[in-house]
Amino acid sequence: MVHISLGGILVMGSVITLTTDFGTKDGFVGQMKGVVLKINPQAILIDVTHDIAPFSVLEGALVLRGVSRYFAGDTIHLGVVDPGVGSARRGTVVRAGNQFFVGPDNGLFSLVISSFETWEAREIRNTEYCLDNPHPTFHGRDVFAPVAAHLSAGKDLETVGPVVNDPVMLSIPSPRISGGTVEGEVIYIDRFGNLSTNIDAGMLNRAVSTVHVGNTTINGLSRFFSEVADGGALALINSFGFLEIAVNRGDASQELGIRCGVSVTVELSSMP
Amino acid sequence: MVHISLGGILVMGSVITLTTDFGTKDGFVGQMKGVVLKINPQAILIDVTHDIAPFSVLEGALVLRGVSRYFAGDTIHLGVVDPGVGSARRGTVVRAGNQFFVGPDNGLFSLVISSFETWEAREIRNTEYCLDNPHPTFHGRDVFAPVAAHLSAGKDLETVGPVVNDPVMLSIPSPRISGGTVEGEVIYIDRFGNLSTNIDAGMLNRAVSTVHVGNTTINGLSRFFSEVADGGALALINSFGFLEIAVNRGDASQELGIRCGVSVTVELSSMP
Amino acid sequence: MVHISLGGILVMGSVITLTTDFGTKDGFVGQMKGVVLKINPQAILIDVTHDIAPFSVLEGALVLRGVSRYFAGDTIHLGVVDPGVGSARRGTVVRAGNQFFVGPDNGLFSLVISSFETWEAREIRNTEYCLDNPHPTFHGRDVFAPVAAHLSAGKDLETVGPVVNDPVMLSIPSPRISGGTVEGEVIYIDRFGNLSTNIDAGMLNRAVSTVHVGNTTINGLSRFFSEVADGGALALINSFGFLEIAVNRGDASQELGIRCGVSVTVELSSMP
Repeated sequence: MVHISLGGILVMGSVITLTTDFGTKDGFVGQMKGVVLKINPQAILIDVTHDIAPFSVLEGALVLRGVSRYFAGDTIHLGVVDPGVGSARRGTVVRAGNQFFVGPDNGLFSLVISSFETWEAREIRNTEYCLDNPHPTFHGRDVFAPVAAHLSAGKDLETVGPVVNDPVMLSIPSPRISGGTVEGEVIYIDRFGNLSTNIDAGMLNRAVSTVHVGNTTINGLSRFFSEVADGGALALINSFGFLEIAVNRGDASQELGIRCGVSVTVELSSMP
Repeated sequence: MVHISLGGILVMGSVITLTTDFGTKDGFVGQMKGVVLKINPQAILIDVTHDIAPFSVLEGALVLRGVSRYFAGDTIHLGVVDPGVGSARRGTVVRAGNQFFVGPDNGLFSLVISSFETWEAREIRNTEYCLDNPHPTFHGRDVFAPVAAHLSAGKDLETVGPVVNDPVMLSIPSPRISGGTVEGEVIYIDRFGNLSTNIDAGMLNRAVSTVHVGNTTINGLSRFFSEVADGGALALINSFGFLEIAVNRGDASQELGIRCGVSVTVELSSMP
Repeated sequence: MVHISLGGILVMGSVITLTTDFGTKDGFVGQMKGVVLKINPQAILIDVTHDIAPFSVLEGALVLRGVSRYFAGDTIHLGVVDPGVGSARRGTVVRAGNQFFVGPDNGLFSLVISSFETWEAREIRNTEYCLDNPHPTFHGRDVFAPVAAHLSAGKDLETVGPVVNDPVMLSIPSPRISGGTVEGEVIYIDRFGNLSTNIDAGMLNRAVSTVHVGNTTINGLSRFFSEVADGGALALINSFGFLEIAVNRGDASQELGIRCGVSVTVELSSMP
């Protein structure tokens, strides 16, 4: 719950963000928004995205980690990428970094959890916060949206349900470092076709000599796209802090023929 | 008009949802939002979707019926799927279920209307609520958005124009029931490729033995997707209350080769 | 900064619109929204579009010009189509028509600027308004979003940085008029496939006899789409005030095989 000063008067507003793989065309997201506003008309709904690839929990987890660090404390992030909906998988609320995450316990919040030393997770068991007779294929609407709304209206985390000590965690493959070589892989491709790798900037403590991906070899690191000619390939540290291969004003994934999982090899220069 | 208590002070806010086939890329929706906010800066704009298939009034009608039932009373739904814009088709405001619907009288609100015993429709005739010289191809911006804004600012429904007793109604084909067989059809395909039929859960009062669609036969009903293996076909009652054929973690429309209009046959078991 | 009267109490709200080529799937837009709300929790965020074609500054400029005229004074438009991010291109805030535009100085705001006799542009130099160590590939998040937020919170335009007298301007090709013929071209294709030209309604001061585009000849002007049969081609003055070629309930670009840059010839009737 956020206290906003409006013209000197203290008001309780609450930001609830939405991150799903629902698209918007079917109204699933619209239903969730209606449920939230019916419970808490003061909630401020912020669309993050509904274009997570269908069923891609990892993609959702990467987006939620990347986005949440830019929001203020007490923001509530409603995340629904939930192929196991209706099964025994738990529903959860996680508090990490003074923000809240509401959704399925399937790894969607695990990259947020692993970013913080302290966090608290609860299983959603309090049916008073849920719609009656939640439909087994749409907990986003019948469980997670109303729980987020009740939290935004001031309900305490402890009232949601019991503590969860073993939330489902996703693992991202770690790069191999040996001598002057770092070998990682492409783990994410963005809207522009830029290829994000699992190689953290911190692993490149010496100057980068070359970056190899597929049939392409790139010399050195650039700082921004237009350092190379239009259509030229480049490597840089992206805004998430990871090594990225891009094509200036182009689509690296298409033009270089690279998909997620393809390996990326960095040769570091022998002299720092 | 919704009265929201902000920190003890009563404030007039108003939720206006938007459902269109405009996409967002051209700024048509942006213009509508500007028009609303200029007339009523307190309006709370909620995107439902702008991805209704171009000109598909039926798809818009299904989404509006599905979504509106989850919003609070007094919500105003601005719906614009309007291939007949500029012609003699009427503009309308409908009140049904204590919510308001503003847009073309072309059937877009007819599934909402048929969901309620009592409703009231008015033709938009009051030009004081419209922008000057409405453009004949964009009543969404020049007529419907400003009318919605004026309603949200407290204007009464009666001031919009005369009563309409014969709004344009769409009909959804009805399933045929004979003995132990229900024969319906696919009427909607969602973002995941799930096949929604016109067979209401209430028509399946006995246990489902088999469901046939195209070349696929499914035994019995599932409750949720992951009851079957990844890639397996299943049938369930979806979150709208209708029979749906899906593929777990897959796209049933693509993988089973099924489009809207394909017939679906349910065999009920002889013993209840 | 907009002053909104809530139930008689004066409140400082602020509308910030967003227009980008980012899509939403990667969370880039979500990060920008978080940055804005962290600085000014009272900001009212309005999505215009995130579906500008990647790197298409002209498309963004056309949308911003078309949309901004419908918003109230003091609206802040955050526009980010920024292929030159990180290079020497300037960041800017433009005031025109009593609204504000924040983004790269690459022509994105030039069609707004050329719509007004008086305008003021400033270069963003005040690093106090930016996040620390702005990333060279994401000024949308680290420079433009926080500057927009600070403006919305009441900071004055002059505090942003020095005056810019020579903002980058885009030019749209002008039609050639000779005798009874106007020769222009298709400059924009909308979500429906409608072909918008650079021929202003004012250039057609006499009755239109025929419109030629590709292999298609259209007789006279229509007022709205459904004046012709389904699938029929027509020409009309669109809601932006320009000549447009469309297909009723169809996609003119696909069905007539026309892309941006194709010439359009209008023959005017010899008698007015």
